[in-house]
Amino acid sequence: MTPQPNPQVGAAVKAADRAHVFHSWSAQELIDPPAIAGAEGSRFWDYEGNRYLDFTSGLVYTNIGYQHPKVVAAIQEQAATMTTFAPAYAVEARSEAARLIAERTPGDLDKIFFTNGGADAVEHAVRMARLHTGRPKVLSAYRSYHGGTEQAVNITGDPRRWASDSGSAGVVRFWAPFLYRSRFYAENERQECERALRHLEDTIAFEGPQTVAAIILETIPGTAGIMVPPPGYLAGVREICDRHGIVFILDEVMAGFGRTGEWFAVDHFEGVVPDLMTFAKGVNSGYVPLGGVAISAAVAETFARRPYPGGLTYSGHPLACGAAVATIRVMEEEGIVEQAARLGAEVIGPGLAELAERHPSVGEVRGVGMFWALELVRNKETREPLVPYNATGEANAPMAAFGAAAKKRGLWPFINMNRTHVVPPCNITDAEAKEGLAALDEALTEADAYVS
Amino acid sequence: MTPQPNPQVGAAVKAADRAHVFHSWSAQELIDPPAIAGAEGSRFWDYEGNRYLDFTSGLVYTNIGYQHPKVVAAIQEQAATMTTFAPAYAVEARSEAARLIAERTPGDLDKIFFTNGGADAVEHAVRMARLHTGRPKVLSAYRSYHGGTEQAVNITGDPRRWASDSGSAGVVRFWAPFLYRSRFYAENERQECERALRHLEDTIAFEGPQTVAAIILETIPGTAGIMVPPPGYLAGVREICDRHGIVFILDEVMAGFGRTGEWFAVDHFEGVVPDLMTFAKGVNSGYVPLGGVAISAAVAETFARRPYPGGLTYSGHPLACGAAVATIRVMEEEGIVEQAARLGAEVIGPGLAELAERHPSVGEVRGVGMFWALELVRNKETREPLVPYNATGEANAPMAAFGAAAKKRGLWPFINMNRTHVVPPCNITDAEAKEGLAALDEALTEADAYVS
Repeated sequence: MTPQPNPQVGAAVKAADRAHVFHSWSAQELIDPPAIAGAEGSRFWDYEGNRYLDFTSGLVYTNIGYQHPKVVAAIQEQAATMTTFAPAYAVEARSEAARLIAERTPGDLDKIFFTNGGADAVEHAVRMARLHTGRPKVLSAYRSYHGGTEQAVNITGDPRRWASDSGSAGVVRFWAPFLYRSRFYAENERQECERALRHLEDTIAFEGPQTVAAIILETIPGTAGIMVPPPGYLAGVREICDRHGIVFILDEVMAGFGRTGEWFAVDHFEGVVPDLMTFAKGVNSGYVPLGGVAISAAVAETFARRPYPGGLTYSGHPLACGAAVATIRVMEEEGIVEQAARLGAEVIGPGLAELAERHPSVGEVRGVGMFWALELVRNKETREPLVPYNATGEANAPMAAFGAAAKKRGLWPFINMNRTHVVPPCNITDAEAKEGLAALDEALTEADAYVS
Repeated sequence: MTPQPNPQVGAAVKAADRAHVFHSWSAQELIDPPAIAGAEGSRFWDYEGNRYLDFTSGLVYTNIGYQHPKVVAAIQEQAATMTTFAPAYAVEARSEAARLIAERTPGDLDKIFFTNGGADAVEHAVRMARLHTGRPKVLSAYRSYHGGTEQAVNITGDPRRWASDSGSAGVVRFWAPFLYRSRFYAENERQECERALRHLEDTIAFEGPQTVAAIILETIPGTAGIMVPPPGYLAGVREICDRHGIVFILDEVMAGFGRTGEWFAVDHFEGVVPDLMTFAKGVNSGYVPLGGVAISAAVAETFARRPYPGGLTYSGHPLACGAAVATIRVMEEEGIVEQAARLGAEVIGPGLAELAERHPSVGEVRGVGMFWALELVRNKETREPLVPYNATGEANAPMAAFGAAAKKRGLWPFINMNRTHVVPPCNITDAEAKEGLAALDEALTEADAYVS
């Protein structure tokens, strides 16, 4: 589809937005939301005819790109058949989506509780863990994001929590491994892994293992920085959980459904199976709001003859589930998970490594599949971040300059603090990946200017 | 569409459901979810060819009935145009939905924060109130339901809260007016209203007004029993809130969008405008998951130059918003709000009153529009409920017998504790309303058998 510039419609869309839409995570009068006219595949465009290559997948969720024709057709067909039906019934799209998801989740995660998105998936996973164990506390990592509702944001490690932080009632935070900024003074991944596990064990010992219901981790933390855990870490956490009867929750809201070049990020870590796994986003590329919790046999057994005290009107929503069925089938048919793995290993990964060599502002490149972070720094030796933690305004100018430069070159970048994440749809072409890398290359020269 | 019996498909749908779907609010092995093949208008049918008249509107959300052809077509068109786009942008469906909703909300509730459903709408409304006032507590009514996530269920009054009740941290519950079971020893509505307001004032005085961020009420409590507040009550609460700088939140998730024969239930109470109003369900008849908070100018101003610390990936989801735009237009074009008002006043209301006269088990009929409750009792004098509060198993046998009798007659009833609610789609025909009343009439003879 060729974008038809239509500034008048764009102005009307913008005016109604400014008059009536209250935006997420924003000071409403300090934002200027771009009016977007359309999107297809890995591109979107505005009403002035500017086209952008999307290296963000929205908020890292359109894993199959925008407007995949087979999924659009499936949504249209599901709408014609059964848009909606209440959750207490067995309906085909719901049954089939649950079956297809359960077939792909690891181990015995065979029961699917559907929610509307990732935040309520985390809310319910935590509730299941507390009731399953009869214990109050949840341990979560400082560098993490688990959702915007009250419980989920309190479990979150990132600064978006602060305004709603209820003072840690029921939540204990710990440090997960992150070799590039190790506070365990580790010199290699093996050491970082061992020390991070020892830190977690100590934290549990001093909190009292019998008070800990769950440990929740993003399998590979997403917005917090795409830190692929070192080999052995997740297996170590699994062992600690087993030893103390703690429920192990892996949050795959962002990392799941192909993003890392496997169906789930946990598939990279042989033998690791959580007790609960949350998902959303990639399950249907966000074409219809959907999330959920995959539940192990042991946790499901707790609620076999005792009611699970939670639910929602749109649990297993047929239109959302129909979109998930179509998305999973398309991902199979088109080999999108394999494509993400290959592009990561052969194009994006090597391409970013090459950028890191040439640009003094790139401190580290890390990631897997279509899930990459570039850590931008003022100095490769000191590793001082290009902008301070949670910087705004003038302090954030270097990242703003980098972002503007990328957009000027037709690339829409994902930016969080001092990082840019390379998280395009999992099915972009090799040519698009290279085009994006070339634009990044040019934009990084802006960041280089701040290196000292 | 004529249902085609297809028991084999039904068995497969059921088998996959039982193997993989974890259902809301249920002991998973003690339920037997009916397999539903299709739905249209006010009817749905199973794979055996049984058809039911739906007096539940799902979970009181399909206000325009199932598969409204214009809304189905609009979803199909929106899917072809733009299924999804991230929340930080201005897109047409999102802008237009916000505009149409803001045009209908009362007073200056002109900014719309979109969520995925009712629970997260309540989560965010409470957060806005706390940050707007800088105060910690939320006051909510015992007879209420506000959603299934942790914060929302803790604010809830109904027993679904108990398993997750964190012991009232930040939540204080009070008693709203309910003349039929008055604990204010009131003899009429005027007295009940005055005494309920005095009780609320006392509660605030003893909690400390400067500690109270918000009072949240369902405008007309839904699942808790459809108690239409007496004239003057909501105006009185509004005045108390104004006096103490407390944010007044009305929850219209169930009562909004035509259910009561007005666009919003609050429209029945002249001059009452809350500071925040939550919605979901009827906004697009649940065809695509959507909820939200309508925000007053004063609360919006708090987040004009200071970020609102909350958000979600699917906020203002284009497909969901497109469905809302179409639903609101259809409701206008077809006069569905007016139809709900007329059917309530002329058919359902009088019909239920007539049933109450003839059936000794009907203690009270109350409601408005397409939002009615029948309070079933063992004795009209003592008003002893037909089953105890939160009864299960044998203790709940009378209500189970009533429900089975209704289904046998082709009517799918809404049952909660000792009540049946009459909450069909707002656009059923007069003939369907009468058909449903006739089935209710027969089913109530089962309940009558338990009267002593």
